[in-house]
Amino acid sequence: MRAVWLENRVLSFREDVPMPELLKGEALVKVRLAGICGTDLELVKGYYPYRGIPGHEFVGEIVQAPAAPRRIGQRVVADINVACGECPDCRAARHGHCQNRRVLGIKNRNGAFADYLSLPLPNLIPIPETVSDEAAVFAEPLAAAQQIQQQIQIGDADSVLVIGAGRLGQLIAQTLTGIVGQLTVVARYQSQQALLTEHEIDWIREDGIRERAFDIVIEATGSPAGFALARQAVRPRGTIVLKSTYQDTDGSKWPVQLSSLVVDEITLVGSRCGPMAAALAQLEKQQVDPTGLIAKRYFLNDALAAFKHAAAPGALKILLQIKSQPVTPLPAEEENQNE
Amino acid sequence: MRAVWLENRVLSFREDVPMPELLKGEALVKVRLAGICGTDLELVKGYYPYRGIPGHEFVGEIVQAPAAPRRIGQRVVADINVACGECPDCRAARHGHCQNRRVLGIKNRNGAFADYLSLPLPNLIPIPETVSDEAAVFAEPLAAAQQIQQQIQIGDADSVLVIGAGRLGQLIAQTLTGIVGQLTVVARYQSQQALLTEHEIDWIREDGIRERAFDIVIEATGSPAGFALARQAVRPRGTIVLKSTYQDTDGSKWPVQLSSLVVDEITLVGSRCGPMAAALAQLEKQQVDPTGLIAKRYFLNDALAAFKHAAAPGALKILLQIKSQPVTPLPAEEENQNE
Repeated sequence: MRAVWLENRVLSFREDVPMPELLKGEALVKVRLAGICGTDLELVKGYYPYRGIPGHEFVGEIVQAPAAPRRIGQRVVADINVACGECPDCRAARHGHCQNRRVLGIKNRNGAFADYLSLPLPNLIPIPETVSDEAAVFAEPLAAAQQIQQQIQIGDADSVLVIGAGRLGQLIAQTLTGIVGQLTVVARYQSQQALLTEHEIDWIREDGIRERAFDIVIEATGSPAGFALARQAVRPRGTIVLKSTYQDTDGSKWPVQLSSLVVDEITLVGSRCGPMAAALAQLEKQQVDPTGLIAKRYFLNDALAAFKHAAAPGALKILLQIKSQPVTPLPAEEENQNE
Repeated sequence: MRAVWLENRVLSFREDVPMPELLKGEALVKVRLAGICGTDLELVKGYYPYRGIPGHEFVGEIVQAPAAPRRIGQRVVADINVACGECPDCRAARHGHCQNRRVLGIKNRNGAFADYLSLPLPNLIPIPETVSDEAAVFAEPLAAAQQIQQQIQIGDADSVLVIGAGRLGQLIAQTLTGIVGQLTVVARYQSQQALLTEHEIDWIREDGIRERAFDIVIEATGSPAGFALARQAVRPRGTIVLKSTYQDTDGSKWPVQLSSLVVDEITLVGSRCGPMAAALAQLEKQQVDPTGLIAKRYFLNDALAAFKHAAAPGALKILLQIKSQPVTPLPAEEENQNE
């Protein structure tokens, strides 16, 4: 089959990758659409020594399911963590933190930038009929955005600053609209600013951040430099939500003054994935419309160009269209091609 | 008057320090008993460029109070933060985080290792009659220990590790006894271990810490090295409470991998002072007995020897007896003099 392949930090497009072999309880999924995420870009930079097919944001269709043939034809997204079921974290119902976990396209498990992928049946979550492929492909980052509200109390008394208006920052801002008292997003690029304006979300530039002013600061820049800004912006006894994962083998380049967190009584909350079903429900109710984030779609054989585009400063969501027939571009897409 | 004086990181005992001058609304307090705290030792090391009389844990007696003469004779402890009342933090009822605050014996305000100190009347909190000087002198660190329960949900389902069995670690452990499901303290020195055993609190050595095993880890070593142990011990989605303040001008010596906090979804909670009135109430109800922590009492003119003792590895609480007449040692004190 065709697939993007990552090995020794080098990406390539291949047409000779073997089809996934199904283990017991697994299904074969034909990938329809996939999204390039900041984590994919970090994998290429060497954030984690991954070898194989990257990609973990996708929409696909179940085409083989020996243990559940009635699920054939289902359109699905996935919980990307494949847990062992036996370690202390699994026994404590923290499957996403299983010490032996394989993670689709991230760790010891081939991912979605390919014609086909395999996953255990319980990982595959049906997409409601009214949710388009273009919306459902955002289910994973949308779930990550919603996770913040699972982890901290956040409401109409809070002034919230989101630092970073990229793919995840935009989704976070959309999920908080109407929920928090005052929402401001730090946006660096014009494309990001325009999308926020379209959603009537206040934005500022980095140099407009007021110090010690925000109850809650969400760091979603994808870069370690975002933390220093977050630290300045948060008020004493405030909360910083950390959303960025990046290559950071010893932390020494981006020092954190732990002692000052004690003096100012700051809380840091590390926040990663969230529940996919809740994200799909929010898409079904049209509470969030992520399709405005789509900057451009590429065919799978143009994946290297797609990765290059996704890594460009200010780029919003780049999708990989796996099926080979031409598709009609979305209206927003055409405008964004001029970036 | 007599006082301990800190200047350019040099401590001295002086007999010629001017008496405090009372500003409007302030009271003059004759100090009876004071405790040497980790922060005092850090000030000597240069944690903060303090010049003046150190000391912030004390019991005293109001001897002048022009605005409230009826309070003369009251035995008191104190909220050590003197806030401006006008900055954004004061207006938001975060007086302890006032940007212009003076802090007794820590920042721009002479402290308690002296015959007398002055403080605004609202800062002075009467001590219940049944609480001895020797117990009340622990009100400030006890409040800091209790603050943890104000900041995080902690209960009988939680396994909790306290790292550090010094003055603060012991008080934290005592306040959590009977409240958390499983309590373990990392204790390095025999004196610390013996006191924990006396209170029927489980303790282990550093090398006995199980990795990824504890729901909540409280870092109270007073040293930046404690964080690495806490990070190893906490489970995914667990909480680390940070209690240590120390000299840490750029954080670079003790790197923190922020990205790994995201992956493991760890929460860090900076925790500092707590409400003094609640601490006094707990002492009045005899829910905590801190007097077992007293290692030795020194007279004020022996303050330099007292500081040296307090800085010794494993030393528990060292008190300064301000009044000059001899006092009867506590039973525990005699045993501990052989350390």
